[in-house]
Amino acid sequence: MEKPPVKVVVFDAYGTLFNINSLDQVLHHYFGDRASELSALWRRKQLEYTWLYTLMGSYKPFSEVTMDALVNSCNSLELTLNNEIRDELYQEYLQLEAYPEVRSIVESLSEKAALGVLSNANQQMLQGAIDRNNLGSFFTKVLSVEKIMLFKPRKEVYQMACDAFQVLPKEILFVSSNTWDAVGASSFGLKVAWLNRFGGVMEELGFQPDYVLDEMQQLLEVMNK
Amino acid sequence: MEKPPVKVVVFDAYGTLFNINSLDQVLHHYFGDRASELSALWRRKQLEYTWLYTLMGSYKPFSEVTMDALVNSCNSLELTLNNEIRDELYQEYLQLEAYPEVRSIVESLSEKAALGVLSNANQQMLQGAIDRNNLGSFFTKVLSVEKIMLFKPRKEVYQMACDAFQVLPKEILFVSSNTWDAVGASSFGLKVAWLNRFGGVMEELGFQPDYVLDEMQQLLEVMNK
Repeated sequence: MEKPPVKVVVFDAYGTLFNINSLDQVLHHYFGDRASELSALWRRKQLEYTWLYTLMGSYKPFSEVTMDALVNSCNSLELTLNNEIRDELYQEYLQLEAYPEVRSIVESLSEKAALGVLSNANQQMLQGAIDRNNLGSFFTKVLSVEKIMLFKPRKEVYQMACDAFQVLPKEILFVSSNTWDAVGASSFGLKVAWLNRFGGVMEELGFQPDYVLDEMQQLLEVMNK
Repeated sequence: MEKPPVKVVVFDAYGTLFNINSLDQVLHHYFGDRASELSALWRRKQLEYTWLYTLMGSYKPFSEVTMDALVNSCNSLELTLNNEIRDELYQEYLQLEAYPEVRSIVESLSEKAALGVLSNANQQMLQGAIDRNNLGSFFTKVLSVEKIMLFKPRKEVYQMACDAFQVLPKEILFVSSNTWDAVGASSFGLKVAWLNRFGGVMEELGFQPDYVLDEMQQLLEVMNK
């Protein structure tokens, strides 16, 4: 039985298309040698809060969850956070840079398939990063969970991509650098490429991605298979 | 308007009644100075996996999730895990010791209210720890999520306590040392005492526990209010 060809490539946003390390530079400016500890805890709490809100049957926009997670992380580490720092970090989030290789790869891929973005972030945050990097013309759909008020890895989130592009799950190649997001998308039934940017190990959650990529360039080979 | 009196006190298990530090001794025996790093990551992945399974609409018993989280943590830290270590850690889990003050407090409370346990753990694990500490006679109900195949903080888990004791949410005082569990129970509507054993800070998730306790002894004062 022939596998259905990939018709659509859908990308996660933060850590996959957009480099969140520029936030670390701001953190370093304000928190010096505590910055890397804060950065790790902040990212972790940000994810935890998305999961916990959805598990509790509640919702808060990603922009607010992100700032709440920062407040909690600073409290935990006994670091003082003021409005100036919060505002600067939030502004930084709205204008994250894409990884340097993203533009040319996305351009090449756009000749082979329709492209989309599927993210926990609210539409405003997503559009900010896409516009800042002039990537808007390559993405047919920019999908935010804010429409359904559930965070990844709920099945309804991945279903949004199928609905938006009117394709079957296996006709979508979903690209994420987040292990748990790759697992969630696999569990739902998308074809998945885990972009292992950070040299991590896969989760033990019963699902494996279809492809494991060391660098984004390898997506072009996957699409030529 | 008078508040309804507390009719039932329900406890979380691990970290609240039972001391999980004895696992650290086994970890230290096998992994030396990497033990504390492994212990922290293991506990974190264990929680993450419960959340992610439930978010994905899937389920695996806590005993298996716990061991999967250990495998992933060892992989991440490049530590070698063998069956002997796994078995020893699992056996240790089945016979965790209660914190030293638990018995006398639980005994006193049992004269004022019905008592229960509500845990992510499967029934076998829970019963093992309760039996090993001879606490069985104090708890009217020992409730495991395995019956509904959803993990905390889903509302259905906290609802189990109301159903089992046939009481309203506000007639239950839920005691947990886990911040996110205290938030989940508050969000559902239970009266909540957060037992801050580990000197942590509360989450920024929109809900606060009714009581914050530095030590378990303070539960007796709460019940006399």
